[in-house]
Amino acid sequence: MEFGSFLVSLGTSAVIFVVLMLLFTWLSRKSGNVSIYYPNRIIKGLEPWEGTSLTRNPFAWMREAFTSSEQDIVNVSGVDTAVHFVFLSTVLGIFACSGLLLLPTLLPIAATDHNIKTRVKNGTDTTSKGTFSQLDNLSMANITKKSPRLWAFLGAVYWVSLVTYFFLWKAYKHVSTLRAQALMSADVKPEQFAILVRDMPSPPDGQTQKEFIDSYFREIYPETFYRSLVMTENSKVNKIWEKLEGYKKKLARAEAISAATNNRPTNKTGMCGLVGKKVDSIEYYTELINESVAKLETEQKAVLAEKQQTAAVVFFTTRVAAASAAQSLHCQMVDKWTVTEAPEPRQLIWQNLNIKLFSRILRQYVIYFVVALTILFYMVPIAFVSAITTLKNLQKIIPFIKPVVDIAFIRTILESFLPQIALIVFLAMLPKLLLFLSKSEGIPSQSHVIRAASGKYFYFSVFNVFLGVTLAGTLFNTVKDIAKNPKLDMVINLLATSLPKSATFFLTYVALKFFIGYGLELSRIIPLIIFHLKKKYLCKTEAEVKEAWYPGDLSYQTRVPGDMLILTITFCYSVIAPLILVFGITYFSLGWLVLRNQALKVYVPSYESYGRMWPHIHQRILAALFLFQVLMFGYLGAKTFFYTALVIPLIITSLIFGYVCRQKFYGAFEHTALEVACRELKQSPDLDEIFRAYIPHSLSTHKAEEHEFKGAMSRYQDFNAISAA
Amino acid sequence: MEFGSFLVSLGTSAVIFVVLMLLFTWLSRKSGNVSIYYPNRIIKGLEPWEGTSLTRNPFAWMREAFTSSEQDIVNVSGVDTAVHFVFLSTVLGIFACSGLLLLPTLLPIAATDHNIKTRVKNGTDTTSKGTFSQLDNLSMANITKKSPRLWAFLGAVYWVSLVTYFFLWKAYKHVSTLRAQALMSADVKPEQFAILVRDMPSPPDGQTQKEFIDSYFREIYPETFYRSLVMTENSKVNKIWEKLEGYKKKLARAEAISAATNNRPTNKTGMCGLVGKKVDSIEYYTELINESVAKLETEQKAVLAEKQQTAAVVFFTTRVAAASAAQSLHCQMVDKWTVTEAPEPRQLIWQNLNIKLFSRILRQYVIYFVVALTILFYMVPIAFVSAITTLKNLQKIIPFIKPVVDIAFIRTILESFLPQIALIVFLAMLPKLLLFLSKSEGIPSQSHVIRAASGKYFYFSVFNVFLGVTLAGTLFNTVKDIAKNPKLDMVINLLATSLPKSATFFLTYVALKFFIGYGLELSRIIPLIIFHLKKKYLCKTEAEVKEAWYPGDLSYQTRVPGDMLILTITFCYSVIAPLILVFGITYFSLGWLVLRNQALKVYVPSYESYGRMWPHIHQRILAALFLFQVLMFGYLGAKTFFYTALVIPLIITSLIFGYVCRQKFYGAFEHTALEVACRELKQSPDLDEIFRAYIPHSLSTHKAEEHEFKGAMSRYQDFNAISAA
Repeated sequence: MEFGSFLVSLGTSAVIFVVLMLLFTWLSRKSGNVSIYYPNRIIKGLEPWEGTSLTRNPFAWMREAFTSSEQDIVNVSGVDTAVHFVFLSTVLGIFACSGLLLLPTLLPIAATDHNIKTRVKNGTDTTSKGTFSQLDNLSMANITKKSPRLWAFLGAVYWVSLVTYFFLWKAYKHVSTLRAQALMSADVKPEQFAILVRDMPSPPDGQTQKEFIDSYFREIYPETFYRSLVMTENSKVNKIWEKLEGYKKKLARAEAISAATNNRPTNKTGMCGLVGKKVDSIEYYTELINESVAKLETEQKAVLAEKQQTAAVVFFTTRVAAASAAQSLHCQMVDKWTVTEAPEPRQLIWQNLNIKLFSRILRQYVIYFVVALTILFYMVPIAFVSAITTLKNLQKIIPFIKPVVDIAFIRTILESFLPQIALIVFLAMLPKLLLFLSKSEGIPSQSHVIRAASGKYFYFSVFNVFLGVTLAGTLFNTVKDIAKNPKLDMVINLLATSLPKSATFFLTYVALKFFIGYGLELSRIIPLIIFHLKKKYLCKTEAEVKEAWYPGDLSYQTRVPGDMLILTITFCYSVIAPLILVFGITYFSLGWLVLRNQALKVYVPSYESYGRMWPHIHQRILAALFLFQVLMFGYLGAKTFFYTALVIPLIITSLIFGYVCRQKFYGAFEHTALEVACRELKQSPDLDEIFRAYIPHSLSTHKAEEHEFKGAMSRYQDFNAISAA
Repeated sequence: MEFGSFLVSLGTSAVIFVVLMLLFTWLSRKSGNVSIYYPNRIIKGLEPWEGTSLTRNPFAWMREAFTSSEQDIVNVSGVDTAVHFVFLSTVLGIFACSGLLLLPTLLPIAATDHNIKTRVKNGTDTTSKGTFSQLDNLSMANITKKSPRLWAFLGAVYWVSLVTYFFLWKAYKHVSTLRAQALMSADVKPEQFAILVRDMPSPPDGQTQKEFIDSYFREIYPETFYRSLVMTENSKVNKIWEKLEGYKKKLARAEAISAATNNRPTNKTGMCGLVGKKVDSIEYYTELINESVAKLETEQKAVLAEKQQTAAVVFFTTRVAAASAAQSLHCQMVDKWTVTEAPEPRQLIWQNLNIKLFSRILRQYVIYFVVALTILFYMVPIAFVSAITTLKNLQKIIPFIKPVVDIAFIRTILESFLPQIALIVFLAMLPKLLLFLSKSEGIPSQSHVIRAASGKYFYFSVFNVFLGVTLAGTLFNTVKDIAKNPKLDMVINLLATSLPKSATFFLTYVALKFFIGYGLELSRIIPLIIFHLKKKYLCKTEAEVKEAWYPGDLSYQTRVPGDMLILTITFCYSVIAPLILVFGITYFSLGWLVLRNQALKVYVPSYESYGRMWPHIHQRILAALFLFQVLMFGYLGAKTFFYTALVIPLIITSLIFGYVCRQKFYGAFEHTALEVACRELKQSPDLDEIFRAYIPHSLSTHKAEEHEFKGAMSRYQDFNAISAA
């Protein structure tokens, strides 16, 4: 790619971003769009606009983002979101500190050398003839072999690494404090009083599952056991309940139409309301609702009596008792009565709870295998895409596009964007599949599923996008050599030598991602259009309108690995082509700014895991650093630099640093520390309410005052009531 | 080695064993020896002889051993000893079941082939020319390459593996039950009410270490916390106390002499009582004792006030509370306030408790490194020993021994025993060093140190004795080839082809070990002689006599790895030279029998770890099986057997089996399961007595009624007294 097309790509992106930002300023001040640009504030019951927002200043939202504190984020969007900002600001800190030293030193050192010129002059550069650009002169590719200038690059590797250790350590400590503060909050949270028990053995004769659980836990915790909630097989009752809810919605819709038009609406009873007998909608749905309610009650009874499973949520009277119980081995046979902290009621995945320990382990390995296959399988099309998306190749393959391509403007645009767009579209297909696979592992909570999917997605993107694209050019030529004599050092060498050639590709990729991606994110053009279309043509009731603008959560399963990929790319090129640091800094500062706005005003988190994402983020940042160090080892070696071995202590330090962090911090993310759980509550908890929070909608009765939920639940013990008081 | 010398070696050993056994029968019936042959019964306060023992039947002890039940062993010698018998009988079961099928099938199959004859005839066997014997005809060495008879040997590998899985699974289950029963016993054991807390941070200003601990734990466990005992730096007070005890002994001795001879004994005050002023011993020691008591009291106060360390034993009012606390994370920073189950008072290693978490980890790795070096360093002398201990080599090196060696009888004896004796003497030097190294890791309990030392010793013996001796012959020739092109398959191949040559060596080694080793063990000749000498010339008081006959414990740190080595050898040769199974069976059945006698009557266990040795034993048996499978894979490959790959599923099965066992059982050995800890006690525990059990002798006051132990201990809380009642 030439320098010109790179600048055009950059310029176009920047213009699009500015346009989208102005659009956002204009649109967000229209009162009809308030539920698109401020949904989180509306749901929280806050005033959507606060004075300043209404000015015509297009940077007002930036000031708001800057002035908001971490505590604001925790209050409005929860600890998980605050942790994501710690991630963004930590990475920003790493890149800013690295750039501060690397940009003013390495760029002049690279620019004043003459490796590329010499090689081109001598005709020794056989692989990249003619494809170099002005940008390459600013990278390590321009340093001659064995040059003492390489000392500066070695020093830069040390500087980047040390800066990373420092920021990561500070961040882990900070997140740990954030988590502790949230867990020791004086508010009553149901999940802090409960544990999840799985792998229960079958009860002895004459006892129900419920009696068995109760007697088991009452014997161990005579004073702190409150009661238990046996998990049930709810698929059928859920279906009935969903139907009932659907009928209720349709009834409300029919009533709304009736009120608006003064005509009683009708519908047909057959397939999709298109065929069959015509009936009065209000009467028809009222009847259906009554039928369903009766059906639901019968099924509820059946579920509670007959469909008890081998898992339960067990409730305790204090937080310490629950936190301690969740960490203790209960049964001499470790694969029975396994316990974990209870997830929040809203993220409990009921259908996974009945899966036995060894079955879960087996599923996990099978799915790891499937994912590994997926990663390898996708390698082929990605390599194909990046191989054909140089225009020259494209012209060879599809000769009839030549006239179009010859137009200078189109040629430039295509050259700039085509490979990147292909890549982005390609990656958009995957997350759903990974979420599904992760859920199949038998994980009991939504947040855990998302962490698992995020990990898989990270490996996928690093392997396929980063390594795939980097190697694609040179791979096909050298794959035969490797196949003949596969050795690790050869792979590293290959990777290291092909890195600089892809630097410009990734500069463009990062720029595209932050300008276009964050522009769309901020302006919310697509949700806005969809909302207005729906509102105009489909929605009749309040509930339907709300459903149309409901913003969803921050979807960490793609957001984190996406940022991680940029992070990995920036790390790996930070010393080879230091200019990428500028792009990395822009990406993460724009990201911080836009997401701050979105977190405060738009997205509604769908769960709270108290920062359990952090250890994963930490480990992957460290993995990216590790990859960077190994590549630099290979690349300095390829430059036949004599002191390349000095990188090895750094690689070992990374491993030790990771180990120490894990030892010092990880335990507190896996479990709740008792010193945190023992803090006093604002008021003595309403245990019955805590218990009821775990009853799914489909099993709670519809009469407001009656929460009897018998059958699968243990009875309240007077004894416990006294000891809890 | 020739067949004749093998038989002579075997016969001599057997004769020695019979002689030693008869000696035992004769000596153990003399009443003067009762404290050597029945010390454990004496200490337990039982009658040393029970009727039948007094018969002249030399097999009476065997009948007693057979008729004793596992419960007897648990009662007399504890769970750890019972677990060791499970180990012995499990291995016996494995070998017996394997032998039942392998001996009648494989021996004829091997004997009727003719590989060795053919190769000798053809002169193709270049490495073992002339050294084969009749025994080799019964081994796999006699099977021709690619022979379909190899199917039988492949089948044998499967049979041995399946039998091992079956017995190991049964044994793990059984030991787990044994442990659970011991832990749920209704007797009060101090360690079940306590946890060990380490890595305490420094207390806030104005608080002592003790107040800090108490307030920390009282906040978390307001109802079940009893009190705490801060660890102190006792080296000085221990020295004073030991001196005091020494003076007391000397005073008692002086008084005994005075009573016996009616002369007041005298001694000199200088070095070793040899120089200096002559004084009256009784007066002199009385004065010294008074001085020391005063010194001790001053030092005790100083220790409790000033030498508090960052570790403590924390006591709870119930077993469940303690068991649960020992498993829970207490501090948000995982490297602070770390908790483990408290070891028994008698096995707590005070001087290790102050070592911090990361320092412990660092020490561990350093020591692993040192041990690895030791293993490699010892390789050289061991290889040297086994290289020169063939007589031919010996004659070459020391030619002047030729006339001695030429005498047929001496030649045979030397040929049979020399290499084995060299080996046994060599191995006797190591255990102390390994115990010292393991203790330096910072491990808090004696039993854990012994487990760690036992593990190191196991690796040492397998690597050095087994692999070292096996390879010694061929290694020197092929080491250059390996150094040129090191590949794992080559190492396996080398090992596999050199195995059969060493089979006879190991047959003799095992035989020597069980006949001589167990003969000496049973007859206790050496302790008997030492005891009688001491009693006659040194001991004056009751206490001194008791010290002279006190038998010590079973010393698992050498016993377990010793048995493990035999097990590994037997496993590895079980299919190659099935005859070794006979020797293995004899070793473990004789071992079971002799040790049963010793456990019931002789050894006094010095600690009780409730079978925590078992997971280590289990894992090492499995490792031996794994090694066996890998070697068979290599050896079948060396025989160019086409279906060798069929061993691979077996190797994978071993890994899965190990994983499943670990998942299912190990947790209950690492921690106490709460369902076990919650069993009712015979009587409500005397918490004060439990607390006092942890106060070391040197810190407890000498006035019988006064157990004030203030300073480092927290005060008793009325509140707790009520809740515990």
